[in-house]
Amino acid sequence: MSAKSKAKKAELMPSKRSAAMQASPIRRLVPLADQAKARGTKVYHLNIGQPDIVTPREIMDAVRNFRDEVLAYGPSLGLPELRQEIKHYFEKLDIMLSVDDVMVTTAGSEAIVFALMAVGDPGDEVLVPEPFYTNYNGFASMADIRLVAVPTDVEDGFSLPSKAEFAKRITKKTKAILFCSPNNPTGAVFSRSDLEMLAGLAKEKNLWLLADEVYREFIYDGGYHTSILHIKEAEDRAIMLDSVSKRFSACGARVGCLVSRNPRIMQAALKLGQARLCPPTIEQVGAIAGYKNIHKYLKKMVNEYQHRRDIVCDELAKIDGAVFTKPKGAFYIMPQLPIDDANEFAQWMLTDFSHQGATTMVAPGDGFYADPSKGKQEIRIAYVLKEADLKKAMQLLALGVKAYNGRR
Amino acid sequence: MSAKSKAKKAELMPSKRSAAMQASPIRRLVPLADQAKARGTKVYHLNIGQPDIVTPREIMDAVRNFRDEVLAYGPSLGLPELRQEIKHYFEKLDIMLSVDDVMVTTAGSEAIVFALMAVGDPGDEVLVPEPFYTNYNGFASMADIRLVAVPTDVEDGFSLPSKAEFAKRITKKTKAILFCSPNNPTGAVFSRSDLEMLAGLAKEKNLWLLADEVYREFIYDGGYHTSILHIKEAEDRAIMLDSVSKRFSACGARVGCLVSRNPRIMQAALKLGQARLCPPTIEQVGAIAGYKNIHKYLKKMVNEYQHRRDIVCDELAKIDGAVFTKPKGAFYIMPQLPIDDANEFAQWMLTDFSHQGATTMVAPGDGFYADPSKGKQEIRIAYVLKEADLKKAMQLLALGVKAYNGRR
Repeated sequence: MSAKSKAKKAELMPSKRSAAMQASPIRRLVPLADQAKARGTKVYHLNIGQPDIVTPREIMDAVRNFRDEVLAYGPSLGLPELRQEIKHYFEKLDIMLSVDDVMVTTAGSEAIVFALMAVGDPGDEVLVPEPFYTNYNGFASMADIRLVAVPTDVEDGFSLPSKAEFAKRITKKTKAILFCSPNNPTGAVFSRSDLEMLAGLAKEKNLWLLADEVYREFIYDGGYHTSILHIKEAEDRAIMLDSVSKRFSACGARVGCLVSRNPRIMQAALKLGQARLCPPTIEQVGAIAGYKNIHKYLKKMVNEYQHRRDIVCDELAKIDGAVFTKPKGAFYIMPQLPIDDANEFAQWMLTDFSHQGATTMVAPGDGFYADPSKGKQEIRIAYVLKEADLKKAMQLLALGVKAYNGRR
Repeated sequence: MSAKSKAKKAELMPSKRSAAMQASPIRRLVPLADQAKARGTKVYHLNIGQPDIVTPREIMDAVRNFRDEVLAYGPSLGLPELRQEIKHYFEKLDIMLSVDDVMVTTAGSEAIVFALMAVGDPGDEVLVPEPFYTNYNGFASMADIRLVAVPTDVEDGFSLPSKAEFAKRITKKTKAILFCSPNNPTGAVFSRSDLEMLAGLAKEKNLWLLADEVYREFIYDGGYHTSILHIKEAEDRAIMLDSVSKRFSACGARVGCLVSRNPRIMQAALKLGQARLCPPTIEQVGAIAGYKNIHKYLKKMVNEYQHRRDIVCDELAKIDGAVFTKPKGAFYIMPQLPIDDANEFAQWMLTDFSHQGATTMVAPGDGFYADPSKGKQEIRIAYVLKEADLKKAMQLLALGVKAYNGRR
């Protein structure tokens, strides 16, 4: 062994798990976008689910009226008034809970991490329909849980796989099924019978059900949302993960919740919660005001997003070779485009393309798959811009596809 | 096997790691305190490090003046202005950093979890002087890291163990030494030569150094604080963990930071940070104002705590058989009391004791040890009350010890 390689061996290295973690496909191209902006190019952001909708005034007013003299620790389970308001909010959705079933978390992110740590030990497995919210990979790495993907398909609108597709992937190590409905990144909405199928399977195989429902209200065309908390058969095994981020256009608040009627899970979640002491106090005060006034603006917001979805689909339809189904919910769509490598394409849109001084940033599809060889022709679009900007961004995307395929 | 035990076997159970996590010794007696209050007993809280000091007006004003229309996601590394202010703050402490060395975290808690996950893989070991901040246990459980305790002793003021004591516990699995100075729960402050010893050992054995310095300013009797970031020899292996909670009496803000000059660690921390997207936005805006105005109130606050420390020590000295050394920093003391079981005693103070309608709540010592058979005669006192209340609380404690030992 040479002196050089010996020296290398003695170097202090970070953990293997941190090395194995992927950089966020939603955020990793940010430096390229910054460079494009520095060159004077306008960048339309369809890469991140950051709504442009104004945060409800009641939330901001509550923050501005915060009058405590000491910004103190709150309870580990969250402010009692917020837990109460969350209970009320679910009552109106015909979901009856006790306050004890509700734990406030530091955003939906923490709710998912806590749920994974509460149901599984290092090396355990959790099934998840694929493509899935890319950050599940990071959360699973933190919890040292292996995500086992159950493929869905762009051709049928990413509908839920059959019971057999889930069942054949269940091993002794499988502890739960994790799913997101309305779905990020596909916009698919799972029906009551979908959820009943999952509940039946979970009961048969003694699994937990982890339901990410942060887009609950984002349902279009007069459809409705079934929560895992509506499914009687899943009552003792359902863990619902939620956030105020999208519902209140308050992504920076970092307030979410974990809901379960299983007291053992709530006890496990409490212990995880006590370790980190409490969620942010002031933003919880804002969230209380949000839930109290939710009836005032939800309908208008959902109509706006439905309109945006229609714009995106209309513009996508103009791209020859684009494959997609009109999504029923959330504010994402994951079309397949006539490109060979979406990752390269998304970068190229920032480094090489611009039209009249502007370009569009999208999230490459591969990052939303457990197996990064998949999704190579797909991108995720978050339709979070106002009509004129969204149309412009989509037209730039179409021009980009054409130019990308026509380049030498 | 009977039908009953079979049924039990099929029950859905939370993970082993969550079952193994201890309930917080600082918070687990809260229900008993609530019951005491319901009976009309006044409870003085010396159990939790929640300062009663008013949060600086500049922080609250910044929160109230927050004028963004959309409460949006911030950068995963934190708001650039806050990172800049943190850099300036360290400059004034003669610690030169690049902004790239600073990552904002959701409180010190997240900084510690990220550091553990960034340096170690499941099953790895981290040395920590004992007693230690009890929540390290929870963070280690989350990261599936094994904490290996290096004992310190009440008799010599919990001073740092010798190099040999650390060295003999180092195995192939040891990845880091984690320590807290000024120390929670003991109030000990480690000197420059202590830190140089640790840096030398870490270099020899190729370990990371994780320094929890959230009590940096809480130094008494004209002493000074040496940061791990001051130690040249530790430059490439130091990871400093910090929080605004105590410094600004803003525990509910959930804003902290992780600082390292090692770019690999910063890269690992960024990936962990991208998974959870960002720290809370509004509270970061508050923290910016805090750092900008820190010179205005720090001295007064530290003087106030020194005065409180003196009161606590004066009152402790009146308890026959109490063993303690006057702490040099933080706002905790961990005396040994003439009681056989501090856990039982702390409960009894809430359930059975009151004097003129009042009692005192303390944290039992055993929860601050990796081995819960230790610390049985110790309690942790957080001196976070105003003079009159603190004196009263300490006198109730003394009466409690007497009554507890005199009971049938």
